[in-house]
Amino acid sequence: MPPSASPSAAAPLAARSLGAEPAGSPPTVPPVLVDVLRGDLVESVHRGHAVVCDGAGEVVAAWGDPALVIYPRSSCKMLQALPLVESGAARALTDRQLALACASHQGAPLHVGAVRDWLHGMGLGDDDLRCGTEPSRDGVYRAEMIRADEAPCQVHNNCSGKHAGFLTLAHHLGGGPDYIDPAHPVQRAVRASFEEVTGESAPTFGIDGCSAPNFATTLHGLARAMAAYAVAGRGSPEQARSRAMLRLRAAMAAHPELVAGEGRACTELMRAMPGAAIKTGAEGVFVAILPAQSLGIAVKIADGATRAAEAAVAALLVRFGALDPGHAAARRRLDQPVVNRRGLTVGRIRPTAGFP
Amino acid sequence: MPPSASPSAAAPLAARSLGAEPAGSPPTVPPVLVDVLRGDLVESVHRGHAVVCDGAGEVVAAWGDPALVIYPRSSCKMLQALPLVESGAARALTDRQLALACASHQGAPLHVGAVRDWLHGMGLGDDDLRCGTEPSRDGVYRAEMIRADEAPCQVHNNCSGKHAGFLTLAHHLGGGPDYIDPAHPVQRAVRASFEEVTGESAPTFGIDGCSAPNFATTLHGLARAMAAYAVAGRGSPEQARSRAMLRLRAAMAAHPELVAGEGRACTELMRAMPGAAIKTGAEGVFVAILPAQSLGIAVKIADGATRAAEAAVAALLVRFGALDPGHAAARRRLDQPVVNRRGLTVGRIRPTAGFP
Repeated sequence: MPPSASPSAAAPLAARSLGAEPAGSPPTVPPVLVDVLRGDLVESVHRGHAVVCDGAGEVVAAWGDPALVIYPRSSCKMLQALPLVESGAARALTDRQLALACASHQGAPLHVGAVRDWLHGMGLGDDDLRCGTEPSRDGVYRAEMIRADEAPCQVHNNCSGKHAGFLTLAHHLGGGPDYIDPAHPVQRAVRASFEEVTGESAPTFGIDGCSAPNFATTLHGLARAMAAYAVAGRGSPEQARSRAMLRLRAAMAAHPELVAGEGRACTELMRAMPGAAIKTGAEGVFVAILPAQSLGIAVKIADGATRAAEAAVAALLVRFGALDPGHAAARRRLDQPVVNRRGLTVGRIRPTAGFP
Repeated sequence: MPPSASPSAAAPLAARSLGAEPAGSPPTVPPVLVDVLRGDLVESVHRGHAVVCDGAGEVVAAWGDPALVIYPRSSCKMLQALPLVESGAARALTDRQLALACASHQGAPLHVGAVRDWLHGMGLGDDDLRCGTEPSRDGVYRAEMIRADEAPCQVHNNCSGKHAGFLTLAHHLGGGPDYIDPAHPVQRAVRASFEEVTGESAPTFGIDGCSAPNFATTLHGLARAMAAYAVAGRGSPEQARSRAMLRLRAAMAAHPELVAGEGRACTELMRAMPGAAIKTGAEGVFVAILPAQSLGIAVKIADGATRAAEAAVAALLVRFGALDPGHAAARRRLDQPVVNRRGLTVGRIRPTAGFP
């Protein structure tokens, strides 16, 4: 289907959420972006919103409602890490640590060991984290831990790298141990830069799975922020911010295995697109930073399904020239087999005909 | 929101699937049935279709498209078990075994032991099943198996009771060991009774997660079948079928713990509605058989989300007088807390305002 917005349609729209219906302005019913087939029948469909922005923050293409207010969830970790770098607090950090600060890692030994070392280097430990415990998402390691009667720690939480970054910034800015309090200097700094880069004041925030505040933005605001990261380092007037964005983007692109993990969409697709950075978020969010195309992308599946966000963002990455559709990592998301318990392929998950 | 169909709107509609758009008849965009909130913002929404039928198979109320063609998935296990009982093959089976034949059990020791005994009683074993292996969904038992280095067997598959029923029917009807072949006498019998009770010839079938054919029907056909089970035993002209339906419904209602497992929606909600039988299916399907109300219900969440199917069916069960909204099992589905990794309640999953 053709995108519903062209650059000229990028005029400000009244912000709205999935649940709010401003008088006289019924919410857009977003189009179907992804089909789930079983045999010859479409068994389920996923509707969603998507926005593509250029370096000036203008909408290049959109599906659904660019003014929809969403929680970016983990897709905005590179925004949450921005004050860490911009403040100078990250001067001694490695790019691997910055990649982990932007990661939803799967708690494999690689990730857990690196975050543990980072905490120890600050004289801190697992108890200083505020993200909560989570079983490792690495199946082999999780089973090893069960056999060893080892309980999951906070460092196994997929957000532990982000929280190690928050602790690093807290050390720099001061404030108490509750660095996830929205009134803490860390979160005040996150909110300020989040609002500046999205170009909007956050209308609200939610508490994330890891207990940090997650500031809301329109989908357009999120895509605008991703586009700013895409063109960072090209003579922006705000040099410190621009350098910080460039460093974070480069750290993610250089260490795809740290941003998610083996087999995961972020890791596999970044390996297929050198220089680009992409990031998933819970409840069907996905963003992409495309330096070669000078574009930023933000996707929100209306029902929150990850399987659909992965298929939709892969289709957009192909459409906008960042991803080779013949690459194995692309094919797995553009035509994902549904495999049953005997290993038979009984269906497919695919971008719907005509999208994008 | 008001239902979109009244009894007079129950005239035959052209069958359509989520993916097909017959010329001149755009598919219904189904309404939002369930909201997912985080803080004060609706973060995700679930659209869906629902049909309520009376004992004559007429539509009492509907949301979305009653003519939508769906796979009922595991929600139709009591239909797949109908020839087992109607043929006389189940004469020696207990009601506990029939409840397991209709179950998507969670592979707890209770379920696994009972299915294993059933197979042994026929002189069969795990290798005679064709459902494939699946790790137990009972967390404590699954961890015990990992510690004991015990690999999951086919008997742990949530469908193993249905397959034990298929094997029992295969013993009665003859045919080779591949009882899941659509041409096998077992599946031919399943298809015949499925089509008679739904009142439609199945336009297609898919291969289910457990490798059995899953015959397609309209949502109206599925609700009609559930209503037939609801009024079974009340002087139907087809006495053998009516008695078979009654026996299966009663077996499910008598053994809610076998149909799913502790903590699961089917088990908890059936305990709250003595005499009623309800059943979940993958990809957002849920059905209900309500003898006291003489009604059958079928729900399909368009995007396939289980969390939404549970909330939507609970709301319909309350609306049609089967479920006390104050019961703890009902409250958990009508206003489900979203709990994060530190145990904080950060959101809610709820039927949308005005539904049903």
